[in-house]
Amino acid sequence: MRIVLFGATGMLGKAVEKELSPRHKIVRVGRTRGDFQVDIAIRKSIASLYEQLGDVDAIVSTVGDVHFGPLEEFTPEYFDVGIRSKLMGQVNLVMLGLKHIRPGGSFTLTSGQLNDDPIRLGISGAMVNGALEGFVRSAAVELPGGLRINLVSPTVTEESMATYGPFFPGQKAVPAAEAALGYAKSVEGIQTGRIYRIGWSRN
Amino acid sequence: MRIVLFGATGMLGKAVEKELSPRHKIVRVGRTRGDFQVDIAIRKSIASLYEQLGDVDAIVSTVGDVHFGPLEEFTPEYFDVGIRSKLMGQVNLVMLGLKHIRPGGSFTLTSGQLNDDPIRLGISGAMVNGALEGFVRSAAVELPGGLRINLVSPTVTEESMATYGPFFPGQKAVPAAEAALGYAKSVEGIQTGRIYRIGWSRN
Repeated sequence: MRIVLFGATGMLGKAVEKELSPRHKIVRVGRTRGDFQVDIAIRKSIASLYEQLGDVDAIVSTVGDVHFGPLEEFTPEYFDVGIRSKLMGQVNLVMLGLKHIRPGGSFTLTSGQLNDDPIRLGISGAMVNGALEGFVRSAAVELPGGLRINLVSPTVTEESMATYGPFFPGQKAVPAAEAALGYAKSVEGIQTGRIYRIGWSRN
Repeated sequence: MRIVLFGATGMLGKAVEKELSPRHKIVRVGRTRGDFQVDIAIRKSIASLYEQLGDVDAIVSTVGDVHFGPLEEFTPEYFDVGIRSKLMGQVNLVMLGLKHIRPGGSFTLTSGQLNDDPIRLGISGAMVNGALEGFVRSAAVELPGGLRINLVSPTVTEESMATYGPFFPGQKAVPAAEAALGYAKSVEGIQTGRIYRIGWSRN
């Protein structure tokens, strides 16, 4: 398959590339590096990238920013970061990708555990991850042409524990290579509308 | 208790008022009717209302618009309707309400089943309802001062079947009075971070 990987130059994206590249042709997209550059919070930037790329069999995203901060200090602007980037950025990868994905192709987006397993400072991540779950479950039953869509919801990776570990007290991390399996399951499997929770489960 | 009810003049809001008013003082807020008027999609409108209202023991919302339409025809503007009204409108009722709610008070918001039980044309409702679930679960563990927050997720009411029934094939409706019990459970109970699903359950 020809797979476009948004976030290919990030920690998780690199692991996904390593998992998929032995069997597929990967187009690596980063914010400032990779084969192509895009800022997913800017819709035109995505549209212009897809025009350059041509058709693909799978669209995979490991990207999206959210603001972290205490609930009481959250402003509309802080909420907007997550809505514009991790939520609508990934939604726009799907909506604009509809014209560039081949029949039977798949979309795989990334959320995280905060909507079901909340942490201090995580209000925006919780909102955005919940929104992505709803979007994916609903899009799965409405997408045309046998297209599929799934969501990977990984916990903290071992590789990012130095940075994010303190925000997740008591959380067992997973190797990024294990999180990457969720993307392979989505792209190479036949399921749709599923949330692949890697390293955590609902209470 | 003194309870402010956003959406009091709507079909569901009227049922909530009927359920709560025998035991509490209800301040009825509508878009164009009620004791006070507000457009929850406009943040300043909410802030100005709270200034007039003074302190309350509970903030209850049965309101929020989303656009319904086929996935492939959704534009960023259509997604924005739900994000600005049902999602951020209700979130702003909480954020701005923090200064006006008494210690031990509660917030009760409204979502719906579409994020877990999707229907045709419901992509925005699915996204927004999922976002509200994440927000409520996360806010519940971060809210200060013993404040509580819950979400009521009612299915279609018998009273609205003429309008919405065709969009929900095979869905058994509930009387609005039954949906209203979820709001009483949230306001008068002790739970927090809960989703009260009325008339439907997760698969």
